[in-house]
Amino acid sequence: MVSDLLERLSRLPLRDNLRGLEPYGAPQLDVPILLNVNENTHPLPAEVHQAIVAEVSAAAMGLNRYPDREFTELRERLAGYLGHGLQAENIWAGNGSNEVLQQILQAFGGPGRTVMGFPPTYSMYPLLASGTDTAYLAGVRSADFGLTADDAARQVREQAPNLVFLCSPNNPTGTALGLDVVEAVYAAGEASSTIVIVDEAYAEFAHTGTPSALSLLPGRERLIVSRTMSKAFALAGARLGYLAAAPEVCDALRLVRLPYHLSAVTQATANAALKHVGALLANVEDIKGQRDRIVEELTRMGLKPAASDSNFVFFGGLEDPRRIWQGLLEAGVLVRDVGIPGHLRVTAGTEAETTAFLVRLEELLTGGGATAGRS
Amino acid sequence: MVSDLLERLSRLPLRDNLRGLEPYGAPQLDVPILLNVNENTHPLPAEVHQAIVAEVSAAAMGLNRYPDREFTELRERLAGYLGHGLQAENIWAGNGSNEVLQQILQAFGGPGRTVMGFPPTYSMYPLLASGTDTAYLAGVRSADFGLTADDAARQVREQAPNLVFLCSPNNPTGTALGLDVVEAVYAAGEASSTIVIVDEAYAEFAHTGTPSALSLLPGRERLIVSRTMSKAFALAGARLGYLAAAPEVCDALRLVRLPYHLSAVTQATANAALKHVGALLANVEDIKGQRDRIVEELTRMGLKPAASDSNFVFFGGLEDPRRIWQGLLEAGVLVRDVGIPGHLRVTAGTEAETTAFLVRLEELLTGGGATAGRS
Repeated sequence: MVSDLLERLSRLPLRDNLRGLEPYGAPQLDVPILLNVNENTHPLPAEVHQAIVAEVSAAAMGLNRYPDREFTELRERLAGYLGHGLQAENIWAGNGSNEVLQQILQAFGGPGRTVMGFPPTYSMYPLLASGTDTAYLAGVRSADFGLTADDAARQVREQAPNLVFLCSPNNPTGTALGLDVVEAVYAAGEASSTIVIVDEAYAEFAHTGTPSALSLLPGRERLIVSRTMSKAFALAGARLGYLAAAPEVCDALRLVRLPYHLSAVTQATANAALKHVGALLANVEDIKGQRDRIVEELTRMGLKPAASDSNFVFFGGLEDPRRIWQGLLEAGVLVRDVGIPGHLRVTAGTEAETTAFLVRLEELLTGGGATAGRS
Repeated sequence: MVSDLLERLSRLPLRDNLRGLEPYGAPQLDVPILLNVNENTHPLPAEVHQAIVAEVSAAAMGLNRYPDREFTELRERLAGYLGHGLQAENIWAGNGSNEVLQQILQAFGGPGRTVMGFPPTYSMYPLLASGTDTAYLAGVRSADFGLTADDAARQVREQAPNLVFLCSPNNPTGTALGLDVVEAVYAAGEASSTIVIVDEAYAEFAHTGTPSALSLLPGRERLIVSRTMSKAFALAGARLGYLAAAPEVCDALRLVRLPYHLSAVTQATANAALKHVGALLANVEDIKGQRDRIVEELTRMGLKPAASDSNFVFFGGLEDPRRIWQGLLEAGVLVRDVGIPGHLRVTAGTEAETTAFLVRLEELLTGGGATAGRS
């Protein structure tokens, strides 16, 4: 049946760059402990749940009408949350940060244009590029997956891309970039009018004192900082990504966004959550504690976790990561194999989930026989 | 301030096909009687409102997790609603039918490819084409905005587009196409492997006995029928568009859809509404009655309304439509000037809204002096 369907798919007049591809996506398996897609595993606080239901109930009275195309209240609330002197005119939002990034590529990328990323990084960047017919240029990191200001700036000067993605903290490695990297890349893109997108999806999990690229926005009209409510706000299911930039960047995105792209229900859900930032961000501190605990414990086990400013830990030193991934799955713990030899990635969950992961991992490393070992 | 912003926008590295454009969108004016964007002006029935709140409340418990990427329950419910032997594997959905149409163009259109429409038709088609770098070919209708099977098929054979949009009932004219047109266009696109999209956003408002292109799907793997919950289901604010097609078409769209593009809240809202189809479609009969009343009354006033199978009426015979539009607005009634000389478009509202429109229109036609007359 499946091969029959693929055969019929191949007979459709698909565009050439899609031929032979398979849909993106982490496996959605029914497992008790899901630490594979960097969700916030803490359930929504009760007060946030109640606020969402109340706000959606009010919005639902008018669902027969199109939503506010400008989502004005939401932009005001997001600006207030971000601070840094930002106003509603600096804010744009979409159904997940993927949609926001796609809109940026629709406005500034496209046929004959290029976008640069620095793999290993967020795996959607090349797919978003392909979906908008923007050529993807893969930059180079150092062997330890780091990226210095000089190195990044040199690559941007040489390649002169139309856009650059800087993921900070980076997914899947978890480490934040210094602002010097953002400043250097922005300056290097001056001659080529390069749009610089700093993807800060995990910014709220950074160690205290880590600055945000939001502080660099004044005077930099080609700089865009993207964020999401999926992670720190525990709203992956609500699909709300957003960005801060110069007002004219938001105007450019108005040219490519689909009319009424943000539903009244989405706007209500996000607005309700933004009235309860305190309760939501309290869980962030919990998660940061578990994240630091994972790094310490993995180091003790002889593995090589990357420094993490996010809600996940990327770790190397595995001889046979597939065997470890499978052994964890058999114990009901799903982590992510991001396809980098010797490495796996795990989301920091609740204390109990983190304990289950660490206990089983140590069992696999110490007692699993020839196929499960550490290097 | 505005011109300053436009000046700054023009200095950004926008892609060439966006330069000088302004964002799409009907004016969102604060007027008591809004008959301009073909919304369902009947508020949601109370039982539907309650069902939505209950279903969203349950979904909100798990909002920290990503939604079901395959929106399986929703596809099953939509298939059940459509009938015609369709199954979940035949259904795809997005945040409004615009997103579904954009995904179709991302999969089958793009640089070097063409999409054909027959203006006057839905004004988003050329914009969706531009947003995906698909060249838009404008087909030709007869002087009365009709389109025969022979004429449409000839144009498709001559132009050999990669895709064709057939809007039925057509927006802004309101008239449904015969299935013979769809059959002829499909057959004419055989040699060029043309994807044929029948946009049935307003299908539920068609006169009794008007067949749907859904009945043509078996054996036609290049045929796609798109629908929306914005109109008959009174859920414009919820943004849920969908389509029925061969399973391999849905697989093709999985290659271009953004991961988790349909939020858990959107899925819950749509699922709740689909459990109350009876209550929602009861209002459709009301609206059809008002629609027929508008056609009759406009004819009596000496105007020329098009035959309508939708929830709106397109009418000609106006000497100065701008003057009539303005006069209606001053009375608190907003209708749509779709830019076709001598014509306006009005949504069929509730009985009271329709009465207000008709009374004011007749006043403007009979007593408005030199600038408001009928031809």
